[in-house]
Amino acid sequence: MKYAIIGTGAIGGFYGGMLAKSGKEVHFLFHSDYKEACSSGLTVDSVMGDFCINPIHAYRNTADMPACDIILVCLKTTNNRLLADMLRPILKPDSQIVLVQNGLGIEQQLADVLPPSTAIAGGMAFICSNKIGPAHIRHLDYGKLTVGVHQGDCSKLQILCSDLAKSGVECVLAPNLLEARWKKLVWNVPYNGMTVILDTTTEHLMQQPDSRALIYDIMLEVLRGAEANGVHIPRSFADEMMASTDAMRPYKPSMRLDYDHRRPMEIDAIYTGTLQAARNKGVDLPKIAVMEQQLRFIQQTYLP
Amino acid sequence: MKYAIIGTGAIGGFYGGMLAKSGKEVHFLFHSDYKEACSSGLTVDSVMGDFCINPIHAYRNTADMPACDIILVCLKTTNNRLLADMLRPILKPDSQIVLVQNGLGIEQQLADVLPPSTAIAGGMAFICSNKIGPAHIRHLDYGKLTVGVHQGDCSKLQILCSDLAKSGVECVLAPNLLEARWKKLVWNVPYNGMTVILDTTTEHLMQQPDSRALIYDIMLEVLRGAEANGVHIPRSFADEMMASTDAMRPYKPSMRLDYDHRRPMEIDAIYTGTLQAARNKGVDLPKIAVMEQQLRFIQQTYLP
Repeated sequence: MKYAIIGTGAIGGFYGGMLAKSGKEVHFLFHSDYKEACSSGLTVDSVMGDFCINPIHAYRNTADMPACDIILVCLKTTNNRLLADMLRPILKPDSQIVLVQNGLGIEQQLADVLPPSTAIAGGMAFICSNKIGPAHIRHLDYGKLTVGVHQGDCSKLQILCSDLAKSGVECVLAPNLLEARWKKLVWNVPYNGMTVILDTTTEHLMQQPDSRALIYDIMLEVLRGAEANGVHIPRSFADEMMASTDAMRPYKPSMRLDYDHRRPMEIDAIYTGTLQAARNKGVDLPKIAVMEQQLRFIQQTYLP
Repeated sequence: MKYAIIGTGAIGGFYGGMLAKSGKEVHFLFHSDYKEACSSGLTVDSVMGDFCINPIHAYRNTADMPACDIILVCLKTTNNRLLADMLRPILKPDSQIVLVQNGLGIEQQLADVLPPSTAIAGGMAFICSNKIGPAHIRHLDYGKLTVGVHQGDCSKLQILCSDLAKSGVECVLAPNLLEARWKKLVWNVPYNGMTVILDTTTEHLMQQPDSRALIYDIMLEVLRGAEANGVHIPRSFADEMMASTDAMRPYKPSMRLDYDHRRPMEIDAIYTGTLQAARNKGVDLPKIAVMEQQLRFIQQTYLP
């Protein structure tokens, strides 16, 4: 069983590192950190124990990688239009692709340009992890991975869950990927964009009454979008998200980190995907539409 | 015929100055600039010709002013809750009050706390004018004042128009104050708030396609709010506002200037008033509601 980690950053470095540490054969795709990975390996400073994978199967191009059985895509979605071409060299007829990425509609976008029977799943990482240097990850908290079937024979997801469990990482198979994706959006849509637009943190958004009410309103719009797509999420789930954010340490969502580091923001996956899914069912989400347009203005005006 | 200028800033200083220069008896309320006004008068550098009113009838408290026939209120709306008390000392039974201010609902808010027959009108200044020093105004362009009846016997508005015309300032009596107010909001609602929220200028908002579309969407929401209140504004009016903003020199709306100078923003008058008027007719304006909440967060978080 060969694993591929496409994108060895904060997320891919953690899951791939844990699998490799437990003895699995893992092939890592690096981008800018390739040289450091070859010379010093992949270093993971983790609350579960520090370790280093050295030597490591490191690559800077998928054309040099072997075909793999389970492929974890841990890239930002901002270059997903290049993903199919990137994956083709490592695909076998029975490869399992897992998109450990944010947003809605990304599995189908990939399915549209790969053979119809390709096993495609989605993955949602509940983890607090950062890249703190070249091929150097700091894992601060959590780590649970939720995966779910999008299309094809995804029986290898059981092996992934089992292998991750043996490596010390919780991995659960969601019965309904779409529901899991929409639930994640209930948090991602309000906090990711609003911390950028209002130049602030989750904590301040929760403290000020107007932004707090706005965050909740946006959550309710996500619920309406989900409902239109046949996914019922009760209002109490939004209340839980509010409560758990209240309880969180001050936290910068990934989009805010992207903005701070002058990287492209995942507007398509998180906002356009959500709006489009609702619009396809005849439902407008006007407040989320405002956020999308504001974020695109910010992306084009203030980011390279 | 005694005039009172309540709030001698960029707007009040110009209209009051022009009236005084043409020989009218004008009593000016100053706040922080009172001492300079007493010693050096009111200086107006205007594209229509520079002048100085010296000596000047300057006051720092309405209790010291005579009762006046026509009272132009040229203060920011942010302290309008204090306005009735401020006006009482200079009110006669037949005084004409004109609120040369932004926003919706401000005339009725004042009417609610003054005697029922008080003559109350609204005024909208189409002017480019700044305060550049103590009791020192620079008038850069335009100057037209549009006034309209809110309640009471407002026959003195004819005198105001005629006196302003004699002083060289165009003043027109709008047949429908509510319509004039809503039309002004078509511009004020999108540009005032969005230049603050997105930290930008009208020019950049018009150049980037997403912010441009958002501005237009917000204008259409204002049109829906107007329609619900019995004021029909055709879509072509929004198109005209877009076109005239395209043609404008880069311009900072008053709310953006307030933000830059760390002064309170007129959120109540421009946003809450608009939303409330629509809500009273059962109409939601969700995109404007997002702007209101974002602006309140910005006000409370970033302004003193």
